[in-house]
Amino acid sequence: MTREPSSSPSTPPAGPSGDDAPRLLEQVASPADLKALDLKQLEAWCGEAREFLLESVQITGGHLGSNLGAVELTAALHYVFDFRRDRLVWDVSHQCYTHKLVTGRRAGFAKLRQTEGLCGFTHPEESEYDLFHTGHAGTSISLALGLALGSTGDPDPPHVAAVIGDASMGAGVAFEAINHAGALGQDLLVVLNDNEWSISKSVGAMARYFSRLRSARLLQRAQQEIQSLITAIPVIGERVDRTLDQIGEVVRHSLVPGHVFEELGVTYIGPIDGHDVRRLVETFKRAKELDGVVLVHTLTQKGKGHPGAEEHPEHVHAVKPRKAAAPKGTGKEDGKVQPGANAEPSGPAFTQLFADALVKAAERDLRIHAITAAMPSGTGLDAFAERFPSRFHDTGITEQHALAMAAGLAKAGARPVAAIYSTFLQRGYDQVFQEIALQHLPVLLCLDRAGLVGADGPTHNGCFDIAYLRTLPGMVLCSPRDAADMERMLAVALRHDGPVALRYPRDASPANARIHPGERREMALGKAETLCEGERLCLWAYGSMVTTALEVADRLRAQGVEIGVVDARFAKPLDEELLARDLQRYRHLVTLEDHQRMGGFGSAVLEAQSRLPLDGARVRVLGLPDRFVEHRTTRGQQFASLGLDADGVEQFVKGLLVSTRIG
Amino acid sequence: MTREPSSSPSTPPAGPSGDDAPRLLEQVASPADLKALDLKQLEAWCGEAREFLLESVQITGGHLGSNLGAVELTAALHYVFDFRRDRLVWDVSHQCYTHKLVTGRRAGFAKLRQTEGLCGFTHPEESEYDLFHTGHAGTSISLALGLALGSTGDPDPPHVAAVIGDASMGAGVAFEAINHAGALGQDLLVVLNDNEWSISKSVGAMARYFSRLRSARLLQRAQQEIQSLITAIPVIGERVDRTLDQIGEVVRHSLVPGHVFEELGVTYIGPIDGHDVRRLVETFKRAKELDGVVLVHTLTQKGKGHPGAEEHPEHVHAVKPRKAAAPKGTGKEDGKVQPGANAEPSGPAFTQLFADALVKAAERDLRIHAITAAMPSGTGLDAFAERFPSRFHDTGITEQHALAMAAGLAKAGARPVAAIYSTFLQRGYDQVFQEIALQHLPVLLCLDRAGLVGADGPTHNGCFDIAYLRTLPGMVLCSPRDAADMERMLAVALRHDGPVALRYPRDASPANARIHPGERREMALGKAETLCEGERLCLWAYGSMVTTALEVADRLRAQGVEIGVVDARFAKPLDEELLARDLQRYRHLVTLEDHQRMGGFGSAVLEAQSRLPLDGARVRVLGLPDRFVEHRTTRGQQFASLGLDADGVEQFVKGLLVSTRIG
Repeated sequence: MTREPSSSPSTPPAGPSGDDAPRLLEQVASPADLKALDLKQLEAWCGEAREFLLESVQITGGHLGSNLGAVELTAALHYVFDFRRDRLVWDVSHQCYTHKLVTGRRAGFAKLRQTEGLCGFTHPEESEYDLFHTGHAGTSISLALGLALGSTGDPDPPHVAAVIGDASMGAGVAFEAINHAGALGQDLLVVLNDNEWSISKSVGAMARYFSRLRSARLLQRAQQEIQSLITAIPVIGERVDRTLDQIGEVVRHSLVPGHVFEELGVTYIGPIDGHDVRRLVETFKRAKELDGVVLVHTLTQKGKGHPGAEEHPEHVHAVKPRKAAAPKGTGKEDGKVQPGANAEPSGPAFTQLFADALVKAAERDLRIHAITAAMPSGTGLDAFAERFPSRFHDTGITEQHALAMAAGLAKAGARPVAAIYSTFLQRGYDQVFQEIALQHLPVLLCLDRAGLVGADGPTHNGCFDIAYLRTLPGMVLCSPRDAADMERMLAVALRHDGPVALRYPRDASPANARIHPGERREMALGKAETLCEGERLCLWAYGSMVTTALEVADRLRAQGVEIGVVDARFAKPLDEELLARDLQRYRHLVTLEDHQRMGGFGSAVLEAQSRLPLDGARVRVLGLPDRFVEHRTTRGQQFASLGLDADGVEQFVKGLLVSTRIG
Repeated sequence: MTREPSSSPSTPPAGPSGDDAPRLLEQVASPADLKALDLKQLEAWCGEAREFLLESVQITGGHLGSNLGAVELTAALHYVFDFRRDRLVWDVSHQCYTHKLVTGRRAGFAKLRQTEGLCGFTHPEESEYDLFHTGHAGTSISLALGLALGSTGDPDPPHVAAVIGDASMGAGVAFEAINHAGALGQDLLVVLNDNEWSISKSVGAMARYFSRLRSARLLQRAQQEIQSLITAIPVIGERVDRTLDQIGEVVRHSLVPGHVFEELGVTYIGPIDGHDVRRLVETFKRAKELDGVVLVHTLTQKGKGHPGAEEHPEHVHAVKPRKAAAPKGTGKEDGKVQPGANAEPSGPAFTQLFADALVKAAERDLRIHAITAAMPSGTGLDAFAERFPSRFHDTGITEQHALAMAAGLAKAGARPVAAIYSTFLQRGYDQVFQEIALQHLPVLLCLDRAGLVGADGPTHNGCFDIAYLRTLPGMVLCSPRDAADMERMLAVALRHDGPVALRYPRDASPANARIHPGERREMALGKAETLCEGERLCLWAYGSMVTTALEVADRLRAQGVEIGVVDARFAKPLDEELLARDLQRYRHLVTLEDHQRMGGFGSAVLEAQSRLPLDGARVRVLGLPDRFVEHRTTRGQQFASLGLDADGVEQFVKGLLVSTRIG
């Protein structure tokens, strides 16, 4: 990754126009300040803003590329509209940095995506100009339409604008919204920020259509020529005369670029240069006057102004903080893997473990296909794609389609593996239900970024998958604690004749040598593994939380207290045999998971206990609370803040042991 | 609703061609038999099939209209392809009756949608020709693409076809699939069954586009004329000469009807008459030879052959069985409401209660907007639509968009109420998470058809909503037991400043007079109501299961045993105060819900118990098992088969009481 030297985080970078020039960046602390600039100054401000983002984001980390691409269109929107009254919705909202600059949050960039610092997405708690806190793609047009429809009683309704990237336009929900808004003819501005890149290259026919629109100059010229042609044709006969107007209209209508949108009831303007702020201002002013849904197609360059961005835009999609050392084997996409809940992670990232194990498995089993929804490098599948291109499918930002397609593949005899972030799997929940679980098809769901994710915060935390998947009949749910188990668990999952969801965190795996040096229990469906026995209390931990449990056991052992630790391995089916034994053996059984407490792994244990015909241990459930967990610099800080790191769990366990001793 | 007289269920209806004519319907017991017919016979078979469906489905009930519309296209598909090898995917699959006829299931129609009879949808357990068991719209193209991609290694890969209705094409997932398939250029046949009606009138710009395609003859004529015009133009100068070919190509390309699809990489054929079986056979043969994705646009008439269907196609969408008397106040859409779990339901349908209560509320509160995703009459919102057209929004089959739009409305100050079947809410799960729960917006989700639904079976059972919603922070979950509580609960939900999900079943409500004649406890967020006190055992029931609980208490009282009954009212937040009291007061606490046991209401009780610092009652959870519950004639039969009717619960309770007495 190419990086430029920068000043220290505390000193704002110098403006591009030299020391004497007025620092427009400092002058603009609100949209009103921006509106006070003339167009020449607006252009200069954009230059300063880009310079600032380049410097600042390279220090803190963040979505650099898309933000460098959106500088001018953001400035132009705030210049033309008044978003104290008008309404602006950012799709995904990772491209909102310039918007944050305009709306008085420049100082906050020093702690972007850090504990108690600026959120990397729009966030209503930060600013009245941030209407929604989003991070999943494609919903901005629906939100904007709702805002518009909710204001129809208003005699002077606000203008409503949505900014959406080309990749997000491939999400089904965006199509649903365009389809509805176009039919209604509701006043609405949709700014298509077309940089031809989502996180990786855009896929799908719509993307190809955009690229044809990009080269629409030929078409426009042809249109002009045919019009003059039609006008110039001598009136040969009556028949031609009569149909001429008709034909002319058909031709004029049909040759408008973007007429797929026109057919859907949308007025299309573009494509226009998304870095020409004057042109953008002029276009938005025109769009503001038009009735109905207006789509302005802007062509932007991801990473605009970043040296090297033109050759490798995917490298500047998201950059990691300058000073943090990335753990070995980190996912290549953005390198944002951070130190985790456990004190000293030192193994490869779970993502990497999955990716390696899958490639190994696919070498032996030709039925294995890998599927991603626009996250080939985030999920580590890029290696698979390189090795087995014909068995690799990137569907774009379309989890619904990806999962239904996986079901089709399974029905055809393949062994599809869909690697999707836990939080994004929510988008395809109905397909997991109907196409996969109801048909009991052997589709393997690999849920990356399960649990807390650190700097991205609640839109990206994957905290609900156990609850929403466990309730579906026939699902198998499992989670490996380390490298060795990832490979063994993946093998078991691929052999299972039904749907399996395997979850793992955005984190480094623990160093294998440290824990459990002895023989492992064979990996078998629905079987847990006892890692150590103890007295009075046993921790039943799931997935990556096993490391925390072992750490707590070590600490207590050093203090002369032996507790048991079980790696549950499967949240469904649960190892009820071992559970029944432990419920009788211990006075306290504490479950530990990186997931919302309601409906999660702990609930599975409680449910099993309620069916067992015995009195026994009291079960306590430790997991995420019933609130959204905000971003922090690291996953570890999130856990610590919730009392779910080794310190917190140690305290909790000690509390239980003391109360038992007294009671 | 118009109905024709018919013969009795046991006698197959007579063919249309008189007593002497060979009964083709009897002759065709497999696709091979159909292929053996000549085209004239095929036409005749279609006539007989239509006659048969008209007679048969009016006796048993079922999706009559769409099936009458799909007779010829189904016959033509089976005539042209060989679906022992080739692959046929039905979208939603409610239009598969002719397919069932062709594939040897004629006898089964006598028990269509009845206990152990034919399923109303495709079902792999019935036939090798049914690949998937579906009921939710829009996924057929994804499934078909997966089937095709899974066969790419095959030297002679099967042909893969998907049949999808025009309304389903508005679902985002269908767009995602077309977008992906078009880009891949994978061989695939998509048959668009365009009857201009989903359950109610199709909405959306895409639907309007289809209607323009329908009248595309003008366009086609214009195209021909402009082509001859271009050919006829004298070559005036060098400039024109050079661009002429170019222009010609642009024009030819642009004027093809259906070129929105062409732009997406799909070869479009049509529109053609979907009731001309010869033309369909010829067209499918041609499509079979073409490479890439081919979309055949067929125009069909919903309810074709049904008297009155042309004026009121929505009336023949689904018909109720001839002999069953519909409870008063049944939803008008299809009248399929059946007697429920409780012995003698006699109140209005819950759907009607909701619809009435919402209209009342909307009279007083102008902020209330109602939203449906293509189910205006199924959800009872048609009355609202008539009263408050500007506050009513039917988005089409687009739950994702509907829910995100609701969030936008809420942000604009409205009080949106989205009435969506529990099972279909799954399609918008990610929007419930991100757009609604994460923003903590006051969107009221009204989940109709929650729990078991009877004749529609597992694709329509709404058995997972408590689990997938309860885990989302800040959600309020509630369910009314009867008419009086529906109105009071709706009022509380509309006052709450955050998201609420209110669930109710496809069933009649209990007669109010019968139960709990005294004063009711005031309806308040998170507060349960004790309906009767007892000894040793208390039933904590949720929603419609309260009626079952009261029935069991009545029966036991008659036998001299008093048990307690609590109407939990809220699954979240749970009334932990009352629960703590009851856990101390009783030896057994049994939860009762019309929902999967895993993660549901019972789990909420177990979770609360695990946090309470006391020993107390043993909690047992009664709910749906961890398997998909197949269709039965009535909801009541489904409950009985699971031991969840009053008989089953009485048995269970007695078992517990006996064991306690012994123990």
